Amino acid sequence: MMGVPGVAARAFSALEHEGISVSIISQASSEHSICIGVTDRAADAAASALATAFAPQIASGEIDGVEVRRGVATIAIVGSGMAGSPGIAARFFTALADARVNVVAIAQGTSELNISVVIDEADAPAAQRAVHAAFGLSKIGGGTGARHEHADVVLLGFGQIGRALTKQIADSGAHRTARIVGIIDRTGYVFNAKGIGLRRVAALAAAKRAGRSLSALADGITAAPLDALRAIAEHHLSRPILVDVTASDSASLLEAAMALGMDVVLANKKPLADERTGPALSAIATTNGRRLMTEATVGAGLPIIDTIQKLQESGDDVLRIEGCPSGTLGYLFGELGRGVPFSTAVLAAKSLGYTEPDPRDDLSGTDVARKALILGRLLGFEGELRDIRVQSLVPASMASLTDAEFLQQLPSLDASWDRRVRAALARGTVLRYRALVTKKRVVVGVVAMDAASSFGVLTGTDNQFAFTTRRYRTNPLVITGAGAGAAVTAAGVLNDILKLAGAR
Amino acid sequence: MMGVPGVAARAFSALEHEGISVSIISQASSEHSICIGVTDRAADAAASALATAFAPQIASGEIDGVEVRRGVATIAIVGSGMAGSPGIAARFFTALADARVNVVAIAQGTSELNISVVIDEADAPAAQRAVHAAFGLSKIGGGTGARHEHADVVLLGFGQIGRALTKQIADSGAHRTARIVGIIDRTGYVFNAKGIGLRRVAALAAAKRAGRSLSALADGITAAPLDALRAIAEHHLSRPILVDVTASDSASLLEAAMALGMDVVLANKKPLADERTGPALSAIATTNGRRLMTEATVGAGLPIIDTIQKLQESGDDVLRIEGCPSGTLGYLFGELGRGVPFSTAVLAAKSLGYTEPDPRDDLSGTDVARKALILGRLLGFEGELRDIRVQSLVPASMASLTDAEFLQQLPSLDASWDRRVRAALARGTVLRYRALVTKKRVVVGVVAMDAASSFGVLTGTDNQFAFTTRRYRTNPLVITGAGAGAAVTAAGVLNDILKLAGAR
Repeated sequence: MMGVPGVAARAFSALEHEGISVSIISQASSEHSICIGVTDRAADAAASALATAFAPQIASGEIDGVEVRRGVATIAIVGSGMAGSPGIAARFFTALADARVNVVAIAQGTSELNISVVIDEADAPAAQRAVHAAFGLSKIGGGTGARHEHADVVLLGFGQIGRALTKQIADSGAHRTARIVGIIDRTGYVFNAKGIGLRRVAALAAAKRAGRSLSALADGITAAPLDALRAIAEHHLSRPILVDVTASDSASLLEAAMALGMDVVLANKKPLADERTGPALSAIATTNGRRLMTEATVGAGLPIIDTIQKLQESGDDVLRIEGCPSGTLGYLFGELGRGVPFSTAVLAAKSLGYTEPDPRDDLSGTDVARKALILGRLLGFEGELRDIRVQSLVPASMASLTDAEFLQQLPSLDASWDRRVRAALARGTVLRYRALVTKKRVVVGVVAMDAASSFGVLTGTDNQFAFTTRRYRTNPLVITGAGAGAAVTAAGVLNDILKLAGAR
Repeated sequence: MMGVPGVAARAFSALEHEGISVSIISQASSEHSICIGVTDRAADAAASALATAFAPQIASGEIDGVEVRRGVATIAIVGSGMAGSPGIAARFFTALADARVNVVAIAQGTSELNISVVIDEADAPAAQRAVHAAFGLSKIGGGTGARHEHADVVLLGFGQIGRALTKQIADSGAHRTARIVGIIDRTGYVFNAKGIGLRRVAALAAAKRAGRSLSALADGITAAPLDALRAIAEHHLSRPILVDVTASDSASLLEAAMALGMDVVLANKKPLADERTGPALSAIATTNGRRLMTEATVGAGLPIIDTIQKLQESGDDVLRIEGCPSGTLGYLFGELGRGVPFSTAVLAAKSLGYTEPDPRDDLSGTDVARKALILGRLLGFEGELRDIRVQSLVPASMASLTDAEFLQQLPSLDASWDRRVRAALARGTVLRYRALVTKKRVVVGVVAMDAASSFGVLTGTDNQFAFTTRRYRTNPLVITGAGAGAAVTAAGVLNDILKLAGAR
């Protein structure tokens, strides 16, 4: 093979003589063979033509022979934007390698408009799908060569938390790794595949704060949230993340997002705690190879879920979590401890904006139960919301009253609360509304706790979580701090987003 | 060009006639050109031979012409292990793309022993270096095609923390992502590039616990730590991590490790707090594109440094950290608060193994100052250990006593401590040995703190850290728990290792 041009000339003459057309030619430097691609039908004719042409050299051992490899396919990427773009070949071959496709031969001429690879025919469908996906060819804006280092963020909900989040993304410089491309509200959405500029995001936030809907704005499109999500997902996004900062039953949206290739970050507890959708969400994430991040659903920005995961990944066993995860009820029992009547404390909490419009939504303990269920699932608790013993602070007789009637009758509860608080104090304890979480059982309600313990000195609306583990057994690991509020909740969401954006 | 074989035959005949040898041939499928690589010297002759051979077709417009591209180089990867290995091409082209090298032409024949690419000559040195590094060709065991998903861990130090760490890695299943390949002690090392088996690691741990040195064991090699590190680094490791669980001045070793391409995880405070090496280490990490993880240096397994980083990355500003980061001094002041005399409490701490052999090493406050400095640096404090005001519990007059003399004279301190403790109690406070850390100043010493505060109810050897930030301003974010001990320290180290192993 040392005189390649002579060999090549004779080989191609022989093929021309037989009228055989050639699709791909490859001869790597210093390699003593030439690879020629022909159709399967022409293979035998080509082989015999070459064998005849080189019969003397084969006889003398100068040339080893003619080998035919059947059952192969050629897959090529073609595009005028490829020339001069480093990274196209890397992405192409990485897609093939990830799909475990072996490459038999490769050719790319100097025009750089086409890279052809020969692969086993059986691998062809998988190879085509992998390459198609790698370049986002089924998506709007797909086919570009550059690799994006950032993640594209789609916000579901643009209330207080959503707006705090966009401000934090801008202020912290996080937009360089987490770029906001879409914002969805109940009425419609705003989207820009290249990223919504920080100034435009701030203007949208100002408009929302002033009571306007996204669909009513200049670049707003009217659509139901699911349609908005689907329209956005038609674009070739870079590692897209859907961030749910609503308080709605968004499970079906989240499932759709994961099926469409998005990771999900939640501040919204509802879809997690719902018995129908909660366990399903994790399963769907696993099936789709997506990540579901939930730090902000418990304790807002406090590192609660992350701490549980860190303990578990290092092989520790979280045996028990005691928590006061409600700022509203924390405030209430702090006031009771200071001698404030129950009704006065509830009304104060309401006027400070700590409660829902109907304070019974907080006093029922359901919010605490939801958080306890989310923690319980991380420990292996397999029950549902209905399996949790929840002690409501609203007597059954008052559950069906109107809002006004309830507030009017509140003082009727003062005397009995006063007695309980005094009895607790007499024993050196204080009352707390506590969630107790283990693998086996989750209980939510009022307990008396040592006044000189970390739970005893809890103040204001602070949350507290105490983790008793195999390693933190004598004394638990305790985390305390504000567990509600737009800024700290948004910070918890942003930490999750950056964890996803940083992971390759 | 439709009749490729005819064109090819004529082209190669023309080149053969001129005696021109060809290094690479490439024609991608459906592409209407053939790329032929010849030496620069032969380029003109080749071009004119081809122009002459195809003069009629060029004149008629059937063939566009002959283009010569000069100043190119051919780079090839060659190896008999390449055939049938998906991923070789991907790694090759990813290395070229990362080095921003544009690929002009590609050829790989069906023998799969050689991939040749033509690149601009100016890119050749960078391309060669990048490909060399990607396949670890300068390392023992380099040149393999498979991509490894795991990280290779080298342990520096195999005392209690190191042994707890290896046990946790085995028990938690972390060895699948973090494989122990080397263990270094003062006397030598054990190394296996394919990973030291879990059973062998356990046997090594048992031997060390029994007082034997690594160099004395069957597979132990005698070497100074730096030589051990260099010998290990000669191997082609997968994302190697050096884990320092010594208590020595290891800065020069850590610098060497980072220069050799290793990430570093520390449980060892010394090199970080040293004024000469501390800031240098971060700079060297940045220069070498390496990560330096330090969670276990403060509060052992408690998420202290991670929490600071999370607050900061979400744009919060950590204004002030108050901490009781010494279990020894925490125990001491707990006992004092219960009325135990100072000397009795110190001796009890010593007999429980809470103190160093000479309790003055703890009572001096230097250990707390080191931790405070590490926290301070994260907040932007630019001073050194000597800029920290440290209140020692050892009177100057007792600093130069022998160990025995010091213990004998301890009771002379009891009366004054008793007075201070009683005075504090009378004001509703308790004494704590506290570090106060801000951007501007770091102060370490005894203060009286509200008995009904989180610091006031701190018990046993627990550590506590309170972060006052722009967002956690009314009440700080507080983290409490065991801050020393082999198991929780190892867990902190393992969390850092897994963070590195998980990051791509």
